Amino acid sequence: MAKVAVLGAGMMGTALCTPIADAGHEVRLVGTHLDAAWVEGMKRDGVHPKVGMPLPDGVLPFALEELDAALDGASMVCVGVSSAGVRWAAQNLGPRLQPGIPVIAVTKGLEESEPGVLRILPDVFLEHLPENLRSLHPCAIGGPCIAGELARRVHTAVVFAGRDEPTLKRFAEAFSTPYYHVRTSKDVVGVEVCAALKNAYAMAVGIGAGVHERAGGTAAPVAHHNYEAAVFAQACIEMDQLVRMLGGDPAHVPHLAGAGDMLVTTSGGRSSRLGRWLGLGLSFPEAQEKMKGDTLESADLIRVLGGALPSLIAQGKLPPGALPLMRHLHEVIVGGQRIDMPFDQFFR
Amino acid sequence: MAKVAVLGAGMMGTALCTPIADAGHEVRLVGTHLDAAWVEGMKRDGVHPKVGMPLPDGVLPFALEELDAALDGASMVCVGVSSAGVRWAAQNLGPRLQPGIPVIAVTKGLEESEPGVLRILPDVFLEHLPENLRSLHPCAIGGPCIAGELARRVHTAVVFAGRDEPTLKRFAEAFSTPYYHVRTSKDVVGVEVCAALKNAYAMAVGIGAGVHERAGGTAAPVAHHNYEAAVFAQACIEMDQLVRMLGGDPAHVPHLAGAGDMLVTTSGGRSSRLGRWLGLGLSFPEAQEKMKGDTLESADLIRVLGGALPSLIAQGKLPPGALPLMRHLHEVIVGGQRIDMPFDQFFR
Repeated sequence: MAKVAVLGAGMMGTALCTPIADAGHEVRLVGTHLDAAWVEGMKRDGVHPKVGMPLPDGVLPFALEELDAALDGASMVCVGVSSAGVRWAAQNLGPRLQPGIPVIAVTKGLEESEPGVLRILPDVFLEHLPENLRSLHPCAIGGPCIAGELARRVHTAVVFAGRDEPTLKRFAEAFSTPYYHVRTSKDVVGVEVCAALKNAYAMAVGIGAGVHERAGGTAAPVAHHNYEAAVFAQACIEMDQLVRMLGGDPAHVPHLAGAGDMLVTTSGGRSSRLGRWLGLGLSFPEAQEKMKGDTLESADLIRVLGGALPSLIAQGKLPPGALPLMRHLHEVIVGGQRIDMPFDQFFR
Repeated sequence: MAKVAVLGAGMMGTALCTPIADAGHEVRLVGTHLDAAWVEGMKRDGVHPKVGMPLPDGVLPFALEELDAALDGASMVCVGVSSAGVRWAAQNLGPRLQPGIPVIAVTKGLEESEPGVLRILPDVFLEHLPENLRSLHPCAIGGPCIAGELARRVHTAVVFAGRDEPTLKRFAEAFSTPYYHVRTSKDVVGVEVCAALKNAYAMAVGIGAGVHERAGGTAAPVAHHNYEAAVFAQACIEMDQLVRMLGGDPAHVPHLAGAGDMLVTTSGGRSSRLGRWLGLGLSFPEAQEKMKGDTLESADLIRVLGGALPSLIAQGKLPPGALPLMRHLHEVIVGGQRIDMPFDQFFR
């Protein structure tokens, strides 16, 4: 039995505590400043207001001000903040971590550090740690994982990715339960690129539901599923191209981190809700208005990747005309266009 | 403008007439003996009772007895029968076809011709044609395509596969419309293996809905989507292995014929309904009883492939322990077991 600290008490960070606690560990769940009300709720009645499930035995909620106490004696650390919080997490954890402590993150995203240079978030996190921690190899989690289902102990299979095999093995052994099936991969880039892209592409798949409603349809076996599946397939192809371009193994695409995670992300979360609004014919600002208060990681990713696309093509990293789906998403999210799915450019 | 004969007036054969007619051709839709009542219905009021849409202008329904008239002057032939009818189709069309006439089929499936030897249906079809037609290269259609949506002109993208490039190009040019986006591939095996497998694996994904209901859940964003996505990802991996084993290009898996078609097949058709019953805890005979009258191509495929698995392993074509998901499906469909998803054997 170990003590495990989890930083970030949103849906995902909180849900992740369930298998860790069920695997027999003491879990200290620390809210960020954004999670303060939730931590208060959990301290009061043991239930995370958004997850809607009692915290398992062995999970203790901590406010951000109690971070030192939460880390005291912790032999493993999980980062469960959103992509916007990855620097903040490194800066707040860094001075408090011992060199060599195993760190794993569920945070997903891509950054463009200079024109045409994309970086995965574990690398951004590492860069913002103090000098003495730079030899850390932060692990990352990919694969299908709706937080509310994980908290309810629904079976899922995930991939832990990390460059240091002993650390990776340690996390996999420590966190596996009969319903949380952990596989490992040393290909952090492959897993993380898929994990980052899936929000954006699942949003694109969600557009079909809005187009269907706009045409007067209701949810049914005959709807716009052909449309959605064609977008899903094109998304797989673009994922494959991007993983290869960044040096990852494209075998992750038709696997847990790619198609698997993309599939669950189309099941009704924020990304697919945004897609629905766009499919209904709203502009992005109008859709944003409808989703006020929601973090839209799909839109963030489209901004980064669509923005980097001209440089990537100019530098010869991608062929001209590459990623027509991502390009159109960027025209919609940044360029103010309405959705007009460019099927004719797909599968070329 | 050409005259096109379509043999098989089920959902798929009938729906396929819509883009062909919209592309400007005269379409003769010929029912098999199983479709007699539907042909009568279409002759009476121009509506296919199961598709529920008026036939487009230019589509003429024919009874099987009128096959000669339907083929008279036809310069292209489509086969839209179910997998069980592929020999019958070859035997009935064969004596009536001119050598060199282009033939394309939507029929999907695999056969084990001798222990451990699997064949795709275009090859079975060809073998049952008369000697003078053996140089035909039947084309095949893969990719997401719910018939009811195609008949309603919902966008979809499909792959036409064929070994003869001019024939392939001719079909693609003749059948493309602004909503029916046709791509081509010379890899018939890759496309057809994906197309055949997708029913069986979509059935497996559908099991999650039944497991969820059985646990007291209702359809919702938080359900058993993690479970379904893990099965979907494992299905992609097994598809990849099978495509490679049979000499096809695994690039079709994260593409239209594989993941794309599998995704739409999970949207509520017969295959996913069968999965739901099994997930609810029914044995296969009990589930069959609930679905009386439905052709269960998913179960047929599992019988063939699961049955061939021991030979494939004995012959060294697959490693021991391969295809754990398909193996379990076979235990359920043929061996009388209830579903107990072997997650621990997945992703190994």
